[in-house]
Amino acid sequence: MAKLKGFAELWRVEEALQTFLAQVQPQRLGLEKVPLKKALHRVAGEDMIAKRDLPHFARSAMDGYAVKAGDTFGVSEFKPTTLRLVRGARVSHGEAARVWTGSAMPAGADAVVMLEYTREAREGRIEVLMPVVPGMNVSPIGEDLHKGDMAVRKGKRLRPEDIGLLTALGYTEVDAIRKPRVGLLSTGNELVEPRCPVKPGKVVNVNRILLDGMVRELGGEPVDLGIAKDDLETITQHISKGLKKTDILLTTGGTSVGGFDLVPEAVNRSGKPGLIIHGIAMRPGKPTGLAIVNDKPVVLLSGNPVAAIFGFDMFVRPLIQKMLGIEYEPRPTVQAKLTRKVPSALGVMVFLRVKVYLKGEQYYADPLRTAGAGVLTTMTKASGYVIIPEDRADLEEGEIVTVHLTGSIGRT
Amino acid sequence: MAKLKGFAELWRVEEALQTFLAQVQPQRLGLEKVPLKKALHRVAGEDMIAKRDLPHFARSAMDGYAVKAGDTFGVSEFKPTTLRLVRGARVSHGEAARVWTGSAMPAGADAVVMLEYTREAREGRIEVLMPVVPGMNVSPIGEDLHKGDMAVRKGKRLRPEDIGLLTALGYTEVDAIRKPRVGLLSTGNELVEPRCPVKPGKVVNVNRILLDGMVRELGGEPVDLGIAKDDLETITQHISKGLKKTDILLTTGGTSVGGFDLVPEAVNRSGKPGLIIHGIAMRPGKPTGLAIVNDKPVVLLSGNPVAAIFGFDMFVRPLIQKMLGIEYEPRPTVQAKLTRKVPSALGVMVFLRVKVYLKGEQYYADPLRTAGAGVLTTMTKASGYVIIPEDRADLEEGEIVTVHLTGSIGRT
Repeated sequence: MAKLKGFAELWRVEEALQTFLAQVQPQRLGLEKVPLKKALHRVAGEDMIAKRDLPHFARSAMDGYAVKAGDTFGVSEFKPTTLRLVRGARVSHGEAARVWTGSAMPAGADAVVMLEYTREAREGRIEVLMPVVPGMNVSPIGEDLHKGDMAVRKGKRLRPEDIGLLTALGYTEVDAIRKPRVGLLSTGNELVEPRCPVKPGKVVNVNRILLDGMVRELGGEPVDLGIAKDDLETITQHISKGLKKTDILLTTGGTSVGGFDLVPEAVNRSGKPGLIIHGIAMRPGKPTGLAIVNDKPVVLLSGNPVAAIFGFDMFVRPLIQKMLGIEYEPRPTVQAKLTRKVPSALGVMVFLRVKVYLKGEQYYADPLRTAGAGVLTTMTKASGYVIIPEDRADLEEGEIVTVHLTGSIGRT
Repeated sequence: MAKLKGFAELWRVEEALQTFLAQVQPQRLGLEKVPLKKALHRVAGEDMIAKRDLPHFARSAMDGYAVKAGDTFGVSEFKPTTLRLVRGARVSHGEAARVWTGSAMPAGADAVVMLEYTREAREGRIEVLMPVVPGMNVSPIGEDLHKGDMAVRKGKRLRPEDIGLLTALGYTEVDAIRKPRVGLLSTGNELVEPRCPVKPGKVVNVNRILLDGMVRELGGEPVDLGIAKDDLETITQHISKGLKKTDILLTTGGTSVGGFDLVPEAVNRSGKPGLIIHGIAMRPGKPTGLAIVNDKPVVLLSGNPVAAIFGFDMFVRPLIQKMLGIEYEPRPTVQAKLTRKVPSALGVMVFLRVKVYLKGEQYYADPLRTAGAGVLTTMTKASGYVIIPEDRADLEEGEIVTVHLTGSIGRT
C-alpha cells in the first residue's frame, strides 16, 4: 500500500527550505529611489550613514539657564550666586541665558541649570542655588549619531522611527529594494469568481485574495495571473507567461498526485531545473512543491486555503525576505502554557492553531480543533499557531510552547 | 522651588487616558463600502454573518473512493470487498466513485475510503481493504460555518484569512469604518523642512513624517497641517482650520510651560471644553496634553520625537482604536528576562527601550541607554519598550518584564 499517497518520499520542512533557498539568487530585484514619505515598511537597499552630526549643535536638555559651570562651583541654596541675564548667542563669566529644552546652547556656556534650581533676582539677574558640572543638562553635538555613523543598515525594513531618523539626518529619499512582483495563479475546474453563483462542486476562489493580502503584508506586489482550468497545456501557458512578468510565482491547487494534479508537470515543462522538491512532511500542506524555473522561484501551494497559508508561511515568507535582503524577520511570538494535551504525528511537522490569552503574567494557549485542514475559521479565530516538531508525538498539557502570532491576543 | 516645572499637578497615565477617552464619542466616523480587494487591515463596521453554509456541499477530505459505508463493514486486508467503479453524481450499493480532496461527494455516498486502503481489481472494480463508518473522510455541509453563523465580528481588523473567509461566503465588499483623518500640526520657530539647510538652532521637522507613519500603521489617514510659527494667533488659526477637515488633531511642540509654549492656550481659544489634561507623570512625555475641542479630540505631543512616540502610543493609539470601534488590540508583547538592574523614578511611568533576543526558550531584554529622551537611535535600535510602573523605583536584574514590541527580535 502506498502510505505516502504517491509521494516517493516526504521532505522535512527545514531541509526543504534550505535546499530551496540555496538555489534562489538574492539581490536580483535591484534598487529604486523612494521618497521617505512613501518608504514606510520598504527595505533599505544600502547602508545609510549619518551625513552630519545629530544633533548638529549642542542643545539644552532642560528648561533653565545656560551658564559657565565654573560660575556655580560651591553654590548652595544658602549661599547662592547671582548671574546677569543676557540675551543672544554668547554667555561670558558672570552671565546666564534663558534656554528651553532643545534650544541651541549659547557660545561660551557649557552647562544648564534647571529652572527649579534658580530664582529671579533684582534688575535682570538670577540666583543659582545649585552647582552644575560642565556638560550637565546639555545634549552634545552628535549625541544621537556622529557624522559617518551607521543610521540604518541595509536590509532593514523601515519603521516610522527609522524614517524619522533619516529625515533628521537630511535624507529625503532612500534606495529601497524594489518590491518583488509575486504572480498568483489559481488552478482548478472547480473554481469560480466571487460574484458567480455557486453550485455543488464549485467553490469561490479564495486563495487569490488570501495570498494577495499575505504578499502585501510582506512588502511584495501581487500580480493576478487568473484562474487556469485543469489542462496541462493551459496551465503550462499560464506559468510561462506569468514568469515573464513576475519575480516569484505562486500556484494554488492541482499539486497532489490526484488525477487532475497537473501543476508539477506544467512547472517542469516551463523551464529548468523545474520542480526540485515535492511532498513535504507537514500538516496541513503536504502537497507543497518548490521549483526553480529559468532562475525564478516557483512555489506550488495547496488548493486548500489553510494549507496554502502554512505553505506560504514556511516557504514564501522566507523566500520574499531573502529576495528583499532581510536577514531575520520572524513573526512576533509569545511563550504560552498549553491548556490541554494535543496529539500529533511522529515524522510530520504539525501546525496547531491556538487562541492565546494573558492571565496575570502568564500567557495561555487554547488549541482550536485541528480536524479539517480546510476549515478557514480555525485561522480567523486563532491568535497564532504552534509548530509541533517532527520528533514529537504529542504536546503535554501545561507545556510551554512558542506561539507564532497571526492575530491578536485575547483578554481574560 | 517649582518641582514640577510649572505643572500644578501631574496626571497618572492610566487616569489621564480613561478621563480623556470617556469624553471621546466613538462611532462618529460612520461606514463606507470597501471592496474586499482593498479591505486588508480595514476594520469591519458591522457583524458579518455567513450568508450560506461553508462548504455548501459535502466534500471529500481525502483522495480515494466515495462509497456507502455499509458496503465496507467487516472487510479487512485479508477479506476485502469488491466494488464496481462508477463515474457520475450517484453511488449505489456495491459501487464506488473516485474522488479527490475537495471533490463534491456523489449522492448516495456517505464516506470516503482513502486511496491507500484500496487496490485496483479486474474490469473497472476496486477492492476495499479497510472498513469506514458513515461520515469518515467527508467534510460535511457547514463544517466551517453554518448559514447564519458569525463570520467576522464588528470591530475586527481584517487579516488576509478574514478576507478569504468572507470571499468564500460570497461577500465582495465590506462595510468598513471610515479611516479617521488625523491632522498633524507641527509648531516651533526652530523647525525647517527636510530639504532646507540646517543652521545652529534649526532642526528638521521630524515629527510630521514620524507620526504620518504611526497613523498609517493604525489605519488612520494622516493630514499634513504644516508648520506653525510660535505665535498664539498663528497656532490658533492652524488649529481651528485643521479641526474642520480632520477627526483627530495632533500637535507637536510648544506644550511645555516654557516661554514659547503657546499650544495649550491656542487649543483653549479654539473651542470648548479645550485642554482637559496637561502634564503627565511619564518619562519621556511629561508635557503631553489631552483636549477636546468642539467634540473633536486633540492630543498635544512633545516636540521631542521620542517623547512624541510615547505620547502617541499611550494616548493616540487607544484613541484611534476607540474611534475605529476596536475593542482590544495591543502591540505584540514578549515576556523577557532583564539583563541588568535599571533605576527608575517613583511616581513616574518610565519607558525603557530594550533590545530583545531569544536564547534557547528564554527571551532576554537588554536595556538601551535611557539618558537622552530625544535620542531617536534608542528607538531605532530597540526591539520594543518596557513600561516601568509608577510604583517601582527600579527593575531588578533577572526580573521577567513585558516588552511591547515595536521592532524585531534579535538572534543570539
